Amino acid sequence: MAGHLMDAGHALTVYSRTREKAAPLLDRGASWAENPAAVAANCDILFSMVGFPEDVESIYLGDRGVLASEQVPGICVDLTTTRPSLVLKIHDRLDRHGSTLIDAPVSGGWIGAKEGVLAIMAGGERAAFDKVLPLLKTFGRDIEWMGPIGSGQHTKMCNQILAAGTMIGVCESLLYAEKAGLNREEVIGIVSRGAAACWSIQKLGPKIVEGDYSPGFYVEHFIKDLGIALEESKALGLSLPGTALAYELYERTSALGRGRDGTQALIEAIRDLSDGSDGSA
Amino acid sequence: MAGHLMDAGHALTVYSRTREKAAPLLDRGASWAENPAAVAANCDILFSMVGFPEDVESIYLGDRGVLASEQVPGICVDLTTTRPSLVLKIHDRLDRHGSTLIDAPVSGGWIGAKEGVLAIMAGGERAAFDKVLPLLKTFGRDIEWMGPIGSGQHTKMCNQILAAGTMIGVCESLLYAEKAGLNREEVIGIVSRGAAACWSIQKLGPKIVEGDYSPGFYVEHFIKDLGIALEESKALGLSLPGTALAYELYERTSALGRGRDGTQALIEAIRDLSDGSDGSA
Repeated sequence: MAGHLMDAGHALTVYSRTREKAAPLLDRGASWAENPAAVAANCDILFSMVGFPEDVESIYLGDRGVLASEQVPGICVDLTTTRPSLVLKIHDRLDRHGSTLIDAPVSGGWIGAKEGVLAIMAGGERAAFDKVLPLLKTFGRDIEWMGPIGSGQHTKMCNQILAAGTMIGVCESLLYAEKAGLNREEVIGIVSRGAAACWSIQKLGPKIVEGDYSPGFYVEHFIKDLGIALEESKALGLSLPGTALAYELYERTSALGRGRDGTQALIEAIRDLSDGSDGSA
Repeated sequence: MAGHLMDAGHALTVYSRTREKAAPLLDRGASWAENPAAVAANCDILFSMVGFPEDVESIYLGDRGVLASEQVPGICVDLTTTRPSLVLKIHDRLDRHGSTLIDAPVSGGWIGAKEGVLAIMAGGERAAFDKVLPLLKTFGRDIEWMGPIGSGQHTKMCNQILAAGTMIGVCESLLYAEKAGLNREEVIGIVSRGAAACWSIQKLGPKIVEGDYSPGFYVEHFIKDLGIALEESKALGLSLPGTALAYELYERTSALGRGRDGTQALIEAIRDLSDGSDGSA
């Protein structure tokens, strides 16, 4: 994503916890900063993207974080999928420094990032969004402003809740097909053309048949996202039993040592449930 | 479906429990038979399609059923979604009379039937399937032979298990979007273009937004199908927690008086769970 920004002619100052990961950008002329505060001091628009909410909090509110800088960029864009409540908190703190936050979680995985075709769901002040839109377009394709700050995260939660349901359906369906002695490729073919069709059966179904659990999206990151979805649901007064079940089943997947596999590895947790397990974790 | 067969020039003898439903066919020259046995006595290939397994059993094994006829058609094709074990039982009985059964459940709903574009998943003897294929083509588009008798039903179960997961995802996602104050049309738009995309969010999502629960497929028929899927799963030694949850939630949907609504009415059962219910049915 940073590479796409450089391709478009933008000067970058970069920081990564693992400096080697920034090497290709530094080789191409990006400047290195020792911490997020040093990045903040050197740019007008700051992008952040990390793994977990605590990482986001550290980048903005930590000792060497953005808000510890003598100069805070006019617009910060956090691309991490994180807690809507955390996004609001950081936005409030930035606002006091005359800055503003855009929450802009993405969808599309590593391939989408590499090819510059990510979906981006953004929330925040509309004028600030319009200003960063040309930058987002360097690595995104479907880019939507969804409303005030936090709306990007909420939209991403909708996406993950939907993905969780489809993944349960895909894995239970293919496990049934296997046990019933059907040709799973043929099953994928016919169900992909009807009312049960989904991206996951079309793209991840064939990987499951091949036993290929290589990650498009990590199990452990999906657990993080579903955990946030459940916390937010509770805050909204919602009970989402399917999302709760998906969270539990993905925790089981991770307990099987598959946290760094792709989300399609869920089928192994459901298989494990079926193979005489008593159902306790 | 019978109309499409007549359009293709085939002479039909028909029976329906509700004679008025056959009137348009009789007006076009189809012959009326007083019971399934009388249909059987008058045809070479017999098609059946009803609602529930007990109806299928009655048509073939009942007092005035196909097997009570002095002459059993060479090939019977049951298009109902029903129990694989029942299909095997009927096949065995037909086999003793020199006949054979093709199980060929369909997908695509009333619109698919009317437009002649149903998906058809068939099981049974390959030679018999090849013989009826031209007839199936009059009302089907995606038609696949999946293997020996029962394979059509098993494939349909795969389809329904997958559909159940996607429907839970769709309904929980749109309920979250509503409570989070998002524009649901925009959410449907963006999630429909990414990794969570599915037919259900694209086609039924907008209906949910409009509060339109008119049936493409009845809740009560989906409960029947999921009940069969769970029975068969158990017989196969499988535990499918997502399918079990969907069954329970659809039972709640039906308990809300929505058995004859479309499957998208599931969102009302999940909403009901969230509105202070203690979780007991």
